[in-house]
Amino acid sequence: MSKTTSHIALVCPGGRITLDIAEQTRKIAAQGFGESIKLHFHPQSFLEAGHFAGTDAERSTAFLEVANDPQFDAVWFARGGYGAGRLDDALYKKMNDSARQKTYLGYSDAGIILARLYKEGIGRPVHGPMPTDIGRNDGQAAITRALEYFINFAPETLESNIQSGQKAVAFNITVLAHMISAPWFPDLSDHVLLLEDVGEYLYRIDRAMFAITASPKIKNAKGLMLGRVSDIPENDRPFGHTEEEIVKYWCDRTGLNYLGRADIGHDAENKIVPFGASNCPNIA
Amino acid sequence: MSKTTSHIALVCPGGRITLDIAEQTRKIAAQGFGESIKLHFHPQSFLEAGHFAGTDAERSTAFLEVANDPQFDAVWFARGGYGAGRLDDALYKKMNDSARQKTYLGYSDAGIILARLYKEGIGRPVHGPMPTDIGRNDGQAAITRALEYFINFAPETLESNIQSGQKAVAFNITVLAHMISAPWFPDLSDHVLLLEDVGEYLYRIDRAMFAITASPKIKNAKGLMLGRVSDIPENDRPFGHTEEEIVKYWCDRTGLNYLGRADIGHDAENKIVPFGASNCPNIA
Repeated sequence: MSKTTSHIALVCPGGRITLDIAEQTRKIAAQGFGESIKLHFHPQSFLEAGHFAGTDAERSTAFLEVANDPQFDAVWFARGGYGAGRLDDALYKKMNDSARQKTYLGYSDAGIILARLYKEGIGRPVHGPMPTDIGRNDGQAAITRALEYFINFAPETLESNIQSGQKAVAFNITVLAHMISAPWFPDLSDHVLLLEDVGEYLYRIDRAMFAITASPKIKNAKGLMLGRVSDIPENDRPFGHTEEEIVKYWCDRTGLNYLGRADIGHDAENKIVPFGASNCPNIA
Repeated sequence: MSKTTSHIALVCPGGRITLDIAEQTRKIAAQGFGESIKLHFHPQSFLEAGHFAGTDAERSTAFLEVANDPQFDAVWFARGGYGAGRLDDALYKKMNDSARQKTYLGYSDAGIILARLYKEGIGRPVHGPMPTDIGRNDGQAAITRALEYFINFAPETLESNIQSGQKAVAFNITVLAHMISAPWFPDLSDHVLLLEDVGEYLYRIDRAMFAITASPKIKNAKGLMLGRVSDIPENDRPFGHTEEEIVKYWCDRTGLNYLGRADIGHDAENKIVPFGASNCPNIA
């Protein structure tokens, strides 16, 4: 394959995508970036096994296959949707040198894989848009942002509230609450932790923040930043606190710094957050 | 107060109850047990502050007040409903000798308090029915069971699948998933862990089991038992595994023993599970 072309492999660690989503994503790539990027959707992306894009074994095998394949420069998670936590625990130990050079891009449930890769020091885990975002208002902008990041780590794609050189990670609040108890979850000392969520009642956001801030893993974090929390369902009685009040409350209770709002969320504006200190070559 | 009367104090660590629930519960107690039990609803139970039965301070103060008051033999949580995790972290260190003699009964969100009391070795935390269960089919049976337990630790009120002398705890799956990351959550080595839930999608039950079984706190548990998981909403696509298959799956993955079904749940049949080895005086 051409050296001037970025080859991106796509898999679905949780829910499946449709052929239509793949086609639309390919079209945006072709029209906007021509030969400089080529997308390779793994057939696993379209499988269906109950809730998931194939069985746990099928999803694990597909992910390991593309991660270890030297012809690909990056792995792009095509969709979140519950399931990444069911991948084979052993696969992270089977990742080869090629896997260790790659960028891994996704968010939401795929954050479980980003966390594990980060803990293991494998490749560059990155929080950002996925092909399923095509369905959102202005979804093309989200896809284009991801593609620009893949091609040249374009600085304008990055979340701009994090200072250059500051270690950072970004997660979905609910997903984070469910993995922070695991021994494989990385220690976030000195990191800024960016959070976002979608479609959860405020009492559930509060409960997830209770779980997150209780964990010793974030005790020495530099601080928390809150992205967007969208599509909050209305409860039978109003919770009485906004999402920002909730995050401030739990920071105050547990002695963590609240550092303000972040430009991430389940929407087309979702900016890109490389895990660790940003070492993007285009940043001064 | 009379020595032959059990005095039970009621508070709401999460959501509030109505005066009607209090009245119905009092009536069942009076009709079934006469002078042998007296219920004392703390006025805090009826407060309202957004989602909660009063502010965090009001709920914390009321709980500490009744726990420390020697005129009460037990504290009965009148309702679950999110909120117990917001009580003052410091209150567990303020509990006196009287608090250390008491029985504490409740379940669901109140499980957070049961876990903390158990970790601190304070009193006898017990998983079982609450006054709000009056609204269920045959709710009177649930209330009566709790009252019989308070009066004489009646063996027929107890969950009967746990062997006598076996250390046990019981929790709501979703609530447990959100507190297992906390340093104050007790280590469950040698314990049987009974689980139940209500009103959650199966993918959420699966995700919660992922969080629970990932924790080192249950690594050396004797095993897990599954109570009832009721009112599961239908997902847009079937999850593909039942709740029992889910629990077995996570036990298998993580090397835990699955020990079968338990007789607990968000229903009127919910049997009583004293935390620790059952030392009920009426058991042979």
